[in-house]
Amino acid sequence: MEGREETWEIHSHPYIPRDLDLQGFVPGFLSQSAIIGVYGFSSFLVVSLVWFLSGRLSKLPKIDRLLMCWWLFTGLTHMILEGYFVFSPEFYKEKTACYLAEVWKEYSKGDSRYAARDSGVVAVEGITAVLEGPACLLALYAIATRKSYSYILQVAISLGQLYGTAVYFLTSYLEGDNFAASSYYYYAYYIIANASWVVIPTLIIVRCWKKICAAVQVQDKRKTKVR
Amino acid sequence: MEGREETWEIHSHPYIPRDLDLQGFVPGFLSQSAIIGVYGFSSFLVVSLVWFLSGRLSKLPKIDRLLMCWWLFTGLTHMILEGYFVFSPEFYKEKTACYLAEVWKEYSKGDSRYAARDSGVVAVEGITAVLEGPACLLALYAIATRKSYSYILQVAISLGQLYGTAVYFLTSYLEGDNFAASSYYYYAYYIIANASWVVIPTLIIVRCWKKICAAVQVQDKRKTKVR
Repeated sequence: MEGREETWEIHSHPYIPRDLDLQGFVPGFLSQSAIIGVYGFSSFLVVSLVWFLSGRLSKLPKIDRLLMCWWLFTGLTHMILEGYFVFSPEFYKEKTACYLAEVWKEYSKGDSRYAARDSGVVAVEGITAVLEGPACLLALYAIATRKSYSYILQVAISLGQLYGTAVYFLTSYLEGDNFAASSYYYYAYYIIANASWVVIPTLIIVRCWKKICAAVQVQDKRKTKVR
Repeated sequence: MEGREETWEIHSHPYIPRDLDLQGFVPGFLSQSAIIGVYGFSSFLVVSLVWFLSGRLSKLPKIDRLLMCWWLFTGLTHMILEGYFVFSPEFYKEKTACYLAEVWKEYSKGDSRYAARDSGVVAVEGITAVLEGPACLLALYAIATRKSYSYILQVAISLGQLYGTAVYFLTSYLEGDNFAASSYYYYAYYIIANASWVVIPTLIIVRCWKKICAAVQVQDKRKTKVR
C-alpha cells in the first residue's frame, strides 16, 4: 500500500512524461479561461494606455505608437511572468491560487520542462527576464523620445527573442519533443503562444535593419562627396 | 568478473562526471600540443592571407582589415570545428586520428557535455555552425565591399555569439558546473578558450553600435532641417 501511495504522489500531476517526479505538486485552482482572461485583459489595459498616452506626444507616427505598445506588452510579460518563473523553482508546489504560479502550472501542460526546471529553459528565460525585459522598456522610451539608438536597440532585443525561441524549440526537439500533455496543449501553448515571439521580432528586425542601412548609406555618400 | 569488465568499459574515458556512459569510447591519438598547434598554425595562415589580400584593396583602414581577419577566423571555426561537432554525435567513438574528432575528444576534458551530447550545447552549437558561420563570411565580404549593412550584420552576429556563450555558461552553472576533468582543463578550455567569444564580440558591438547611432543621428538632423 505504502509503495502504491508513493507512486501516486510522485505521478499526481497532469504533465507528460508521466514519470516526471514532481513531489509536492499542488493542482492549479484557476480555469484556463480565467488565466488567459486575466492576461488578455491586463495586456489590453496596458496597451490601450500606451496607445492613448502616445497619441498625445508630438506627432509620433502610428507605427511607432504600435511598436511602443508591443515593447511594453512584451517587456512586462518578460519581467513579471517569465521573471516569476525564473526565481520560483517550486511554483508547482504553490498552495494558494497565486496568479503567477497558476500561469506556469497551466503552461507546463504545453511544455513540462517548465515544471521539471530544464536548464535550457531556465537559462533562456533568465536572459529574457533579466536582460531583455528591462531593455524592452528602454526601447519604449527610446521610441517616445526619438533616440538615435532606437533602431539598433530594437534589433538587439528582437534578435535575442529569436535566439531564445530557437534554443527553446531546438532543445525540445533534441530531447524528443514529448513534453505536452496532449496535442491540444502542444499546439495551443507550445506552438501558437510562442509564435508571436517569432513573427513580431522578425518584422521589427526587417524594418529596423532597412532604416539602419538607409542611414548608413546616406552618411557614406556624404563622406564620399566631402572627399 | 564480467560485471567489473562492463564497469571498466563504461567508465573508460577521461571525462567528469566519472559515471558518464560513453560506450565505445576510443581515446584520442594526438597530443594536446599537436591539436592546438594545428589549430593555431592554420588560423595564422588564414589570418595572414586575409591581412595580405585586404592590404591590396583600395584604402581599407587597418581596423577593417583586422575585423576581416576576425570574421574569417571565427567563421571557419564555427563552420568547420563546430559544424563537425553538430553533425557527428559519435565523434568519441572515432577509431582513426581524424583531426576534428581529436579536437572534441580533447575539448570534452574541459566540458564533458560535448561528449555527452547535452541538448543545450548541441542547440547553441547548431545555431552557431549553421547560421552564424556563413554570416561571418558575409560580414567579411560586407566590410571588403563597404556594404551599408556591414555594421548591423556585425552587431547581429556578435549578439548571437554573446547569447550563445551566455546560454552555454548558464546551463552548465544550472546543472552543477561539474563537467571538467580537472581545474586545469576547466580554466584552459572552458574559461580561457571561450573568453575571446565574449571579449571580441562585445568590442565589435560597442564600435558598430556607435557608428549606427551616429549615422541615424545625422539623418534625423537632416530630416529636421528639411522640415
